[in-house]
Amino acid sequence: MNAYQPQPEASRRILDDVLRASEQLAALPAFPDFDAALQQQVLEEAGKFVGELVAPLNRSGDEVGAQFNAGTVTMPPGFRESYQAFWQAGWPSLAGAVEDGGQGLPTVVEAVLHEMLNAANHGWTMAPGLLHGAAECIRHHASAELKARYLPRLVSGEWLATMCLTEPHAGSDLGLVRTKATPLADGRFALSGTKIFISGGEHDLTDNIVHLVLARLPDAPPGPKGLSLFLVPKFEPDGTRSAVHCERIEEKMGIHASPTCVMRFDEAAASLVGEPGKGLNAMFVMMNAARLLVGLQGIGLLDAAWQKANAYAQERRQMRAPGSASQAGQADPVALHPAIQRILATQRAWIDAGRVIAYRTAIELDLQKHHPEAAKREAAARWCSLVTPVLKSAWTEQAFAGASACLQVFGGHGYVREWGIEQHVRDARVAMIYEGTNEIQAIDLLVRKTLPDGAAALTTLLAELADDVGQSARTRQALQAFSGFVQKQLLPNTRGAGAAPDQPFWLADDFLRALALLLMAWAWDRMATAPHCDATAHAAFWRWVWPELDMRIAMMNATLSAPEHQPAML
Amino acid sequence: MNAYQPQPEASRRILDDVLRASEQLAALPAFPDFDAALQQQVLEEAGKFVGELVAPLNRSGDEVGAQFNAGTVTMPPGFRESYQAFWQAGWPSLAGAVEDGGQGLPTVVEAVLHEMLNAANHGWTMAPGLLHGAAECIRHHASAELKARYLPRLVSGEWLATMCLTEPHAGSDLGLVRTKATPLADGRFALSGTKIFISGGEHDLTDNIVHLVLARLPDAPPGPKGLSLFLVPKFEPDGTRSAVHCERIEEKMGIHASPTCVMRFDEAAASLVGEPGKGLNAMFVMMNAARLLVGLQGIGLLDAAWQKANAYAQERRQMRAPGSASQAGQADPVALHPAIQRILATQRAWIDAGRVIAYRTAIELDLQKHHPEAAKREAAARWCSLVTPVLKSAWTEQAFAGASACLQVFGGHGYVREWGIEQHVRDARVAMIYEGTNEIQAIDLLVRKTLPDGAAALTTLLAELADDVGQSARTRQALQAFSGFVQKQLLPNTRGAGAAPDQPFWLADDFLRALALLLMAWAWDRMATAPHCDATAHAAFWRWVWPELDMRIAMMNATLSAPEHQPAML
Repeated sequence: MNAYQPQPEASRRILDDVLRASEQLAALPAFPDFDAALQQQVLEEAGKFVGELVAPLNRSGDEVGAQFNAGTVTMPPGFRESYQAFWQAGWPSLAGAVEDGGQGLPTVVEAVLHEMLNAANHGWTMAPGLLHGAAECIRHHASAELKARYLPRLVSGEWLATMCLTEPHAGSDLGLVRTKATPLADGRFALSGTKIFISGGEHDLTDNIVHLVLARLPDAPPGPKGLSLFLVPKFEPDGTRSAVHCERIEEKMGIHASPTCVMRFDEAAASLVGEPGKGLNAMFVMMNAARLLVGLQGIGLLDAAWQKANAYAQERRQMRAPGSASQAGQADPVALHPAIQRILATQRAWIDAGRVIAYRTAIELDLQKHHPEAAKREAAARWCSLVTPVLKSAWTEQAFAGASACLQVFGGHGYVREWGIEQHVRDARVAMIYEGTNEIQAIDLLVRKTLPDGAAALTTLLAELADDVGQSARTRQALQAFSGFVQKQLLPNTRGAGAAPDQPFWLADDFLRALALLLMAWAWDRMATAPHCDATAHAAFWRWVWPELDMRIAMMNATLSAPEHQPAML
Repeated sequence: MNAYQPQPEASRRILDDVLRASEQLAALPAFPDFDAALQQQVLEEAGKFVGELVAPLNRSGDEVGAQFNAGTVTMPPGFRESYQAFWQAGWPSLAGAVEDGGQGLPTVVEAVLHEMLNAANHGWTMAPGLLHGAAECIRHHASAELKARYLPRLVSGEWLATMCLTEPHAGSDLGLVRTKATPLADGRFALSGTKIFISGGEHDLTDNIVHLVLARLPDAPPGPKGLSLFLVPKFEPDGTRSAVHCERIEEKMGIHASPTCVMRFDEAAASLVGEPGKGLNAMFVMMNAARLLVGLQGIGLLDAAWQKANAYAQERRQMRAPGSASQAGQADPVALHPAIQRILATQRAWIDAGRVIAYRTAIELDLQKHHPEAAKREAAARWCSLVTPVLKSAWTEQAFAGASACLQVFGGHGYVREWGIEQHVRDARVAMIYEGTNEIQAIDLLVRKTLPDGAAALTTLLAELADDVGQSARTRQALQAFSGFVQKQLLPNTRGAGAAPDQPFWLADDFLRALALLLMAWAWDRMATAPHCDATAHAAFWRWVWPELDMRIAMMNATLSAPEHQPAML
């Protein structure tokens, strides 16, 4: 089966025709030299690089995998060479700040690059996936000395970075982290503890690795407020090897090319990043950037699975399709069978709408930072805050479910490794878990970001979306109706003295899904008024995706109207 | 992680308390010695056997897998020994006819055994999964000579069997089969061709393997009517090795312990089974029996995943649950968190309702065969015909989606092989494809079994279910409303001169899901009026499963009301 082929033109159409991306971004003082032509050129070059150097390594990366041997990790064949070519060509620094050695391009260009990279080779892309976030974290929180030493190398991608958060007993609950940091005479700290699930904790892609580690100072209070952030390089500037060791790598369901490491810190010399007790805060910079990239990962993975299934459906002939004009005894391509068309068109509806929403989020990230007007910055911050968890959760879930639907197009061949489609299903599954599980994204959206301000930000977002709708009356009405549901049903039953404290937690998953569907309807309205709209995917959205909205509202109403029926398993 | 533990008592409760199984079956003349005590004894012994000999081999079966070497296949360690113990203890012959050497027990006892086996070890259970169907096929269609030679050995399970249908270009479309059968002087035939996806085509579990092969006689017409069924043993009675060879086994996403073989027939001497041109007909006996077993496979796999997730959720502590009474800083078991409770209770709702429906189907299979009254036999045949495709499709889909939900309970640990939960996801995926893809089940239900008789059989089934409902008014109303939908919306728009020929094919998937949900509602009504009803799973059904029904009807209405909007991708 052929490897994934990037389609930069499809992304460009959404950027220019649907979102007026380069127009909006070029108007910002931060991007004086940016325009549509530059954007197009970068996307085309990115497509070439990804298609020629990264995509062909996907299958072998899965088959060979990262290999652990006595503390070292050897990446699959071709990985080091292609990664070296990647950073030397300047790809990691696209959206880095010019003063740090970056190219100062808008975030959305990097976003499209990462969508392509993830579609081409999820395992490979795990390596640079954290770079931008790590650089941002150091940029905002590290001392001048640390910045001078590490920032240029992380912006360029010459060195790679890790996020060392999880411990065996502390996953979603980082407050339980036990790794200790003891002050040393030279102002640094000795770090001791074990971290697990460290993507790229050890490898041979780069000559150095920069670990950002959550740990606890001796006098720190228990819980999340006692966590500080530290930096431990694999090699010190003088070449000394730090006392951080890869103990083993995990055998996983997928992304075999990405080493998931157990890292042991044995009084490793570490530098404090930011203030003591503010470690989680500093880490959140990385995590929020990572969540958009994980949403794009979902979109990319689904697109890769769709490409494979679509190609197979055109070639494979089985039975006559109903109403087919083919001659008796002649079999039609399975793409003509309604069940297959439904699968393909439905996934396309998710991919295209996902792109509109994700690319807009990347644009809003820059508007939030760079727009001269405070109100615009505030609106952009609102979008990013509310939409990022929706993207991360709904599109990683769809990547898995949709890749599985694409596998179904292959019949029995889909279950066989040689066709490559089952790898996408295995790879995609992890994105529902990492960077905050999808359930935690839903709680973030409803409990942390919607209920505390009485849904003020959400209500504004829904109104803005409704104002932006062009043709689709039902989208506008649904946005308004959902606003009414939030005000009249959701808020009164989840706030105040009478409300059960667990009530919102039963609603969070459905609430996030509802918002995902409303955002998709907005995205399809925007695409329908632009040139080149995919009418088949658009029809599939209304017929097979949209009806879930009423189902989610019915589920929430059932929960709200019968709080005494809360399941209680223990 | 501990291996799956069979729970025969849970099955017994459904059989006795919900379905009055032994009472109904003992009343049939075919089962004079059967009663509740015997049923209980057999289920308990089955649970012991499965728990002690089959479940412990699940992990190693996945890790080691079946090994191919120069035409031979070596099964994973312990597989031959446990299979030999299995047939020697009489387990394959439970429901075999006494005159063929079987024990003459009701089908439902075998059904529960297979649910346990599949839950314990899907790869292992692939081997005996086709035995009963192969025996039935030979019993009904083979000559007296072939029966005398093969039937006792297949009933006992001393020899195993295969179904050789698929060819590289002929999957769902068996009409494209090309394997040729040329008459030989001795009344037999020389078979030549290549078959793929042959489960257990070669292995070392038994001393002989009986292949049932679809092939085409020289004068056969093209298409499915030109197919005849043949029998080729691996070894002839005189010890001669037949000219059938395993060329390779597939590398698959899961069920690594089950060798999926490419089988080459080089003028292999074959005996005709049944009449020329009636091969597909004879094979359907095997396929229908297999479909119920695959539905039970779904239920078993989901139960195994649920057991693991439930155990983990009780042990793993992360964060305080909302409204928890635990002390500040103390983390609660994740089982107390609403998102986790929802996952576990929802899967339980599917498992328990699935058991009621599957066990009833197994009972109806015996009523269909053995009930003295023609009307009862006809009603039973109606149930089996309509419910079997629903069971196969909906519960294999839930096995995959639900095992994935159970994986989510483990967070990052779920993605790591060592915990064993990801194996269930990989294993379960195949059941959505084989024995007729789930899309083909849906077409079978709607296009072949519902529309041709003007939904007469379906309408009767819905009325019988409604009559059988005890407490749940909404279940009764929904059954009646769905009947109305079928008569007033579905039939007028899909039959007659004006209807587009592809219209029913766009509706089939939603139609099957709707019937699955209605059957579940009936099952939960039956459980709710019996002792030991799981109130949490029951509540989860109404809140998080049932709302899909309206969504499916909305999808069908959207399709029915806008036939001109049919997506057309080509």
